[in-house]
Amino acid sequence: MYGPRDVRIEERPDPKIIEPTDAIIKMSATCVCGSDLWPYRGIDPVTQPRPMGHEYCGIVEEVGSQVTSIKPGQFVVGSFFASDNTCPICEAGYQSSCIHRQPVGAEGAQAQWLRVPLADGTLVATPDIPPDDLLPSLLAASDVLGTGWFGAVAAEAGPGKTVAVVGDGAVGLLAVLAARQLGAERIIAMSRHAERQRLALEFGATDIVTERGDEGVASIKELTGGLGAHSTVEAVGTQESMMQSIRATRPGGHMGYVGVAHGVELLGEELFFAEIHLLGGPAPVRRFLPELIDLIWNRKINPGKVFDLQLPLEEVAEGYRAMDERRAIKTLLRP
Amino acid sequence: MYGPRDVRIEERPDPKIIEPTDAIIKMSATCVCGSDLWPYRGIDPVTQPRPMGHEYCGIVEEVGSQVTSIKPGQFVVGSFFASDNTCPICEAGYQSSCIHRQPVGAEGAQAQWLRVPLADGTLVATPDIPPDDLLPSLLAASDVLGTGWFGAVAAEAGPGKTVAVVGDGAVGLLAVLAARQLGAERIIAMSRHAERQRLALEFGATDIVTERGDEGVASIKELTGGLGAHSTVEAVGTQESMMQSIRATRPGGHMGYVGVAHGVELLGEELFFAEIHLLGGPAPVRRFLPELIDLIWNRKINPGKVFDLQLPLEEVAEGYRAMDERRAIKTLLRP
Repeated sequence: MYGPRDVRIEERPDPKIIEPTDAIIKMSATCVCGSDLWPYRGIDPVTQPRPMGHEYCGIVEEVGSQVTSIKPGQFVVGSFFASDNTCPICEAGYQSSCIHRQPVGAEGAQAQWLRVPLADGTLVATPDIPPDDLLPSLLAASDVLGTGWFGAVAAEAGPGKTVAVVGDGAVGLLAVLAARQLGAERIIAMSRHAERQRLALEFGATDIVTERGDEGVASIKELTGGLGAHSTVEAVGTQESMMQSIRATRPGGHMGYVGVAHGVELLGEELFFAEIHLLGGPAPVRRFLPELIDLIWNRKINPGKVFDLQLPLEEVAEGYRAMDERRAIKTLLRP
Repeated sequence: MYGPRDVRIEERPDPKIIEPTDAIIKMSATCVCGSDLWPYRGIDPVTQPRPMGHEYCGIVEEVGSQVTSIKPGQFVVGSFFASDNTCPICEAGYQSSCIHRQPVGAEGAQAQWLRVPLADGTLVATPDIPPDDLLPSLLAASDVLGTGWFGAVAAEAGPGKTVAVVGDGAVGLLAVLAARQLGAERIIAMSRHAERQRLALEFGATDIVTERGDEGVASIKELTGGLGAHSTVEAVGTQESMMQSIRATRPGGHMGYVGVAHGVELLGEELFFAEIHLLGGPAPVRRFLPELIDLIWNRKINPGKVFDLQLPLEEVAEGYRAMDERRAIKTLLRP
């Protein structure tokens, strides 16, 4: 990315093993993330050209001398943060805050090859080389499914719960899928976009709310006997979506926020009297990967449906454009 | 309270039963709350004279026609929010956000008599009329103990956990006591006041940190292998104490915030990457009252020690002064 709305494909040096804990992956599929749109739209500054992409799956090509559990030839999925998966923070299930964490995307996953640090802790192998039709779902597990899943877990979605999902991007839609898998009784998707509403319903939403802001909150209250949702997943990251989520949650309820916060300021007084549980941040996708891969491998879930546009890697610029203009929910790229 | 630093005792009409769910209590003891110091110090505006006080225990004098479980002659303790204790929010344990909640302090508990709304839902009777030496502890259960206890529960203090407590007022000190009762392994009290440190140690603190702000955070990190506390209780309500608490908590850890927020603004980005659980608000003291009364009645805990000044109600102005000047932790008033 050279600047706002300026994405170019170009030749770069092949990644090499740098640390003995690294692995090199030949990418089977990669994609454009909703968070990539922040710099694309000029909201996050781009001061110099930078490699993009942090979602990946593919075949291990080479591993460093200290890698023991991951082998060349395996098909693997990993998260956007490399983690050792052994420190106390990882052991508690917060691998995205691992004391040795490293961003995987620094060298850009929208590419043919990728170096992944801390390979043993970061990568999870599938039982076998997957059939081609599972690729979109396995790629989704790398970030967007894992993030939606964390949002639903953080919001304590489960049996008997009414879950509201704020945001109809891929993460929000997959939070709906996660809430369904976790056994939620009622799932309210907030969306005013027909195609996304359709997918939300397919993923398990029981209700659609098209209003936003205070009206959206009023609709959630109306659907929940005036109380608000037990669980709310915030999957946007703006001031409006955060406040909508806080206000849509009943006292004592849980809100999971997974939209990367941009310009959000929460007033202590309102938060205090809302009296809700909050948990959010970069999703510890690694915690959920074995379970998610298993669900995908056994075709219990089909999160790959969020990829409604597939392009060869060379057409990456069109992939960004389509998402920016909301013509596509999410773009899969084939190297 | 007529204005900042202007507290007067004066004759007011005796409270009467207004709603058939009310009870009238003859007060055995009442007190000055840390939150009463906000208006006393002019931080919360006082636009007209207002009755003060919201902590109480005493003998039931009279009940309304619809009150069934509370009887005249019983000794009772209640919380600062009246609650029906039957709505879905109460059933979930968040009585301080009851859909029918009413502030008990509106007519002022720093008085000889008090009207308590929703008596059946709000008041808890002791097994018998308590001996005089239990009065301070039973009064503490009405707010300051229940609030510290909620802070520790919200922070998930428990076996194997390192708990940091930010704030050495009565609530913070009783959060230390609560963390001890909940089985925490290590309890770090943040205090630079010798008398309060002593009480913190007596209540179960294992470590004292005297530094504040970034230095205080660094000390907590140093005591916890660089990770931060598993559990942090915030018991002040300022921007500094909130940030200190957030930063002292390890990723995936829990922070309970019970200081009434004043001028606090949390930046979404920092909160996002802190990746901690948050729960706070006005404590649902009613949830804990039966257990707390039991612990006090059986002399397992002695939270009444936070009252290091006892005065007749007539000397209430001196009670405020002593707390404002930090000569007293908390003032008990005898009507």
